[in-house]
Amino acid sequence: LRKATAQQLKEHNQRLVSKAIYTGQATSRAAIAQETRLTRPTVSQIVGELLQAGLVQEVGPGASSGGKPPMLLGFNDDAYQIIGLHVGGRNSIGAVTDLRGRILTRAVQPSARSEDEGVLLGLCLVLDELRAQATRPLLGIGVSAPGLVDYERGVVHYSANLGWRDLPLKEQLATRCGDRAPIFVDNDTNLAALGERVFGVGGGVDNMVIVMAGTRGIGAGVIINGEIYHGTTGGAGEIGHMPIADHGVPCVCGRQGCLEAVASGWALIRRAQEAAVLYPNSTLSTLAPDTFTFENVRQAVEAGDPVAVALAREAGRYLGLAVATLISTVNPQRVVVGGSVSELGEPFFDSLRCTVAEHTLSLLADQTEILPASLGTDVNALGAVAQVLMGELGLV
Amino acid sequence: LRKATAQQLKEHNQRLVSKAIYTGQATSRAAIAQETRLTRPTVSQIVGELLQAGLVQEVGPGASSGGKPPMLLGFNDDAYQIIGLHVGGRNSIGAVTDLRGRILTRAVQPSARSEDEGVLLGLCLVLDELRAQATRPLLGIGVSAPGLVDYERGVVHYSANLGWRDLPLKEQLATRCGDRAPIFVDNDTNLAALGERVFGVGGGVDNMVIVMAGTRGIGAGVIINGEIYHGTTGGAGEIGHMPIADHGVPCVCGRQGCLEAVASGWALIRRAQEAAVLYPNSTLSTLAPDTFTFENVRQAVEAGDPVAVALAREAGRYLGLAVATLISTVNPQRVVVGGSVSELGEPFFDSLRCTVAEHTLSLLADQTEILPASLGTDVNALGAVAQVLMGELGLV
Repeated sequence: LRKATAQQLKEHNQRLVSKAIYTGQATSRAAIAQETRLTRPTVSQIVGELLQAGLVQEVGPGASSGGKPPMLLGFNDDAYQIIGLHVGGRNSIGAVTDLRGRILTRAVQPSARSEDEGVLLGLCLVLDELRAQATRPLLGIGVSAPGLVDYERGVVHYSANLGWRDLPLKEQLATRCGDRAPIFVDNDTNLAALGERVFGVGGGVDNMVIVMAGTRGIGAGVIINGEIYHGTTGGAGEIGHMPIADHGVPCVCGRQGCLEAVASGWALIRRAQEAAVLYPNSTLSTLAPDTFTFENVRQAVEAGDPVAVALAREAGRYLGLAVATLISTVNPQRVVVGGSVSELGEPFFDSLRCTVAEHTLSLLADQTEILPASLGTDVNALGAVAQVLMGELGLV
Repeated sequence: LRKATAQQLKEHNQRLVSKAIYTGQATSRAAIAQETRLTRPTVSQIVGELLQAGLVQEVGPGASSGGKPPMLLGFNDDAYQIIGLHVGGRNSIGAVTDLRGRILTRAVQPSARSEDEGVLLGLCLVLDELRAQATRPLLGIGVSAPGLVDYERGVVHYSANLGWRDLPLKEQLATRCGDRAPIFVDNDTNLAALGERVFGVGGGVDNMVIVMAGTRGIGAGVIINGEIYHGTTGGAGEIGHMPIADHGVPCVCGRQGCLEAVASGWALIRRAQEAAVLYPNSTLSTLAPDTFTFENVRQAVEAGDPVAVALAREAGRYLGLAVATLISTVNPQRVVVGGSVSELGEPFFDSLRCTVAEHTLSLLADQTEILPASLGTDVNALGAVAQVLMGELGLV
């Protein structure tokens, strides 16, 4: 129970004006006043402050509607730059972007797995490299990490992939990398959802779910009313071990029938290894069983090998069952599917869409778009960039 | 993009003050100012308005902390009354309550199934009866209806149970019953969630899911940040036909393996009828197969019949799988289980809890309470009452 203060009101109005210019919804002081319903003097004052801060610039006179032509305003996408980082099991990667999320430069360093120090060191090396390459002041640094993350404190509670437990990532980065730019840390799948919403195929969508089906695991990110929905303890969207197959395929977690055990990259590799033995006519059987990679499977699907295509359809069916339950629970406008498994192409997506249609109320299924992710391996870092834009300027 | 107006600010502050008094968080003008951080003059002005409107009363002097003892304020729970209605497949039921949701009187009328007119007539009869019994001015009327509901317009898009399609329930009630009190319409399971949150076992919980497993069907209601989460098209929580059993038990919808086909009241009756034939030693076999009711099954479970207990555990297991996916997706603080199936007692809940523990990340499962619903058959009408309290006074 707290009153709305004059300070909050002012900040709210500043964000309204910035956003109107950033999105191009209004580009003159008069249009902004009309769009936001703020008074002309308030708009002029706020625009003055934004001009002085360099976030906005006057770009020249617009068309006159009779009187003096209005001075048009444009957002200065280069006023600041943003660093987005992603800590992965294999590599730490990152990028410097402008205020539109356009990538100016990238960096990558290997992660030494299950060693806090090694992984942190790799991340700091990426950060140092990117800071050296930034050509404008930094608005902030966004960090994407796997596992259960307390985004408010920037602590990674638990990450099976990295072997982290209660690691104060934000604090450690601030101390060890000696940086004074604001740092935002969140779960990688949550940030993938935000990345696609702001810079990818989620444009204009308020309620959205992303399912990231990767080589190591599967997770979902949930966007509600345009913002990441974290759940009570940061666990929203942790669907990797939801029970999906009644017939009990063993999972790495010790349970049976988990989604990851039947539809992740590693599950597909295991199925392909079995198939290589069972179907000597499949191109899969020409591969050495112990050096099988997900890329081998993907290529066999792309080449149209019937056994590989059947496996891609099988993964699509299981992910479809998971997407059906997500639609029934969250009722999003759009479901985006990303991660390496989503690169299995049409057989995979076709089977996924059929399964969703089969197992969801048609009134819901008909109104939900299912699309492949569009940002590839940049998705997490770009989500981290969006988080900074949102947190610092309220722009997205 | 709209500015915050002075009017919104004023309303916001009025609601803060009312809520502080209603919840008992602050009961003197000074304490309210401290709690809400509003200035003393603002608080005094708002309290004056609330006194004049009769919503608040001065209840006598409090303990002095040195100077003049403060005048204590109390909320006037009888300033208005509220009517909550629920349209069910069999009956329309309703209640008049005070501003704390205390039930003063109830009414019930049979619904003539699948006939708009019959059902509406029953509902109007309940409403008329309750209006005649209300002893104070009405704050509003809340209505709970099954199916996909557009709560903003008060239209029932689709209700399989009632045979309704695009029925403008709010408009029809307003016209036909001639009432001028504000009317709020929402989905029954959403309102069950709100009812338990405000008046039942969901007290103080911001993120909560209710699963209502009834004789006819199964649905979930999702509370996020203290409010009903509707989803994009009102379909959030429509989990009745989510795929849960791989082995393909046929469902009334024509699909196989739906949650309702294995864990609703009618599914249990079907299983009990089968068991009556298969297990002649079970008390179930002493019942006439064609007059089986859910109450027969419940009594056999309560009496400890091993076959009936096994069926209750089976239903608990399937609902547990659904609850596991809800926890993985929404990560609520609390899951409440209601509806007639929840009356199967300990065998049912034990099996449900075990299944959740088995199929949910322990970090999530350990932090999620699973509780039986507490409001019985009043839950929907009380949820409708809570909706009115929230919409009209911002109190809950």
